[in-house]
Amino acid sequence: MSAPIPFEDWMQSVQTTIEDALSKLLPSSTRIPERLHDAMRYATLDGGKRVRPMLVFAAGTLFDAPVAAMAHAGSAVEMIHAYSLVHDDLPCMDNDVLRRGKPTVHVRYDEATALLAGDALQSQAFMVLSRIDADPERTVEMLQILSEAAGSFGMCGGQAIDLASVGQDLSLEQLEQMHGLKTGALLEASVFLGCLCGRFPGADEARALEAYTRAVGLAFQVVDDILDATADSETLGKTAGKDAADNKPTYVSILGLEKSRALAEKLRSDAHQALNIFDEKAGYLRQLADLIVERNK
Amino acid sequence: MSAPIPFEDWMQSVQTTIEDALSKLLPSSTRIPERLHDAMRYATLDGGKRVRPMLVFAAGTLFDAPVAAMAHAGSAVEMIHAYSLVHDDLPCMDNDVLRRGKPTVHVRYDEATALLAGDALQSQAFMVLSRIDADPERTVEMLQILSEAAGSFGMCGGQAIDLASVGQDLSLEQLEQMHGLKTGALLEASVFLGCLCGRFPGADEARALEAYTRAVGLAFQVVDDILDATADSETLGKTAGKDAADNKPTYVSILGLEKSRALAEKLRSDAHQALNIFDEKAGYLRQLADLIVERNK
Repeated sequence: MSAPIPFEDWMQSVQTTIEDALSKLLPSSTRIPERLHDAMRYATLDGGKRVRPMLVFAAGTLFDAPVAAMAHAGSAVEMIHAYSLVHDDLPCMDNDVLRRGKPTVHVRYDEATALLAGDALQSQAFMVLSRIDADPERTVEMLQILSEAAGSFGMCGGQAIDLASVGQDLSLEQLEQMHGLKTGALLEASVFLGCLCGRFPGADEARALEAYTRAVGLAFQVVDDILDATADSETLGKTAGKDAADNKPTYVSILGLEKSRALAEKLRSDAHQALNIFDEKAGYLRQLADLIVERNK
Repeated sequence: MSAPIPFEDWMQSVQTTIEDALSKLLPSSTRIPERLHDAMRYATLDGGKRVRPMLVFAAGTLFDAPVAAMAHAGSAVEMIHAYSLVHDDLPCMDNDVLRRGKPTVHVRYDEATALLAGDALQSQAFMVLSRIDADPERTVEMLQILSEAAGSFGMCGGQAIDLASVGQDLSLEQLEQMHGLKTGALLEASVFLGCLCGRFPGADEARALEAYTRAVGLAFQVVDDILDATADSETLGKTAGKDAADNKPTYVSILGLEKSRALAEKLRSDAHQALNIFDEKAGYLRQLADLIVERNK
């Protein structure tokens, strides 16, 4: 076996692959209705850390998945993520004007177009995944995973709990439950979609991946809360300090900054430990855990 | 073969079957997040003509499909339809307060909950369809059909064109294109989902079904426009006269009332003609075409 590509180069290559795949798998903005298609592309392309596709590729690499399948699955997950941001930014939700350093979709277009672009991106995600080049049985399983992670038992459910929690005192446990649904479900789906693109995981492997994604998902949110409290809007590419301004419970508001940082470190180490059953082929998953904790935006 | 159940009884039995299936396939409102699940059930249960599930069952019957599969597929299509109504009624879209004789979801709950309930219903539709008891290859094909019909090449695309057409002069052709996407795509998907629940249609059969659904889809919209112009809100269970008030182009505004009625009759006869290659097992499809043209709400 040849030596693995260094992490930085691998990340760069996944970014390029995903950007290309998304561009091909999104409707062309010359097709009717042009404005809707343009908004769908604006919401998805040219921005974002692509954490979810990275997880698809890192897990897929561990399970010997072909690149074409990972690109399809990664694009589908990213479309779900992009749609959720478009709807999350709407005036009736977070009412945000800045995302990925650009005006949000309803600001750049209009509210109705943002609503429909989000809706159509969700459909497009399932369309893309249903057309993946994989065994039909696997395809069905991937569609089950993604639809469950996106819906009321996953991301949408987490957003509903998040909404209801504004101005409320949440316990750490309730905060974890909320983020487990709001962010964790889709991160976990990314990892399992990645491995289903390759060989089927054994029970031990599936358990290890579950533990890994649980730790990484929480770490992601803890770091998000730390950054929201400490970074500026320009670095983040979105409005900083929103959580405090909106009176939203966060890890920082419950634990304070220092304990939040310690928690992020502990979760990073949990993630690494979960991967102990794998050899060096899990390297990218390990480095992604580091990246998620060390990022500054 | 035993004589078929009379149409009225058959309709009643499909309604009951679908209501039961939807109730089982929607998350319980005792599950967290309760308010979101309650809104999803409110938006979907206990109302609606269930035209799309009826088409699933009528086409399924023609292709010897098992009831359980048709109930799953019919529920999935109805969830897509229900979500589209919730989002369509939002203030940034049609801003409507009445639907199926009840307050719309954002009026009964709030805008954010309506947005999320619609989003989660769309995910739920794909989750339900991905769990249908059918051959995986068929399941994948059904998911391809439903996701395409729901997205920017189908329903969402039609809504975007509809939005852009407010206050515009549309030709009859443009109006047909808009409705073909907005309403027709999901009606057509219903018919093909129904037959994919049973045996695979031959090329001639598929063409006949396409012609049938094209005619029925347009007839549905022509009659909608006629009813919007002639019926009262109480009969419709939704706000009547909205199209004229919103300055939206309709069949009635372009053709006038009499020519619209004649067009509906012509489309009914087209639908019947398309079914000529089938025997009496296509009876429910024939009677649904009649029902769609003759309905008064």
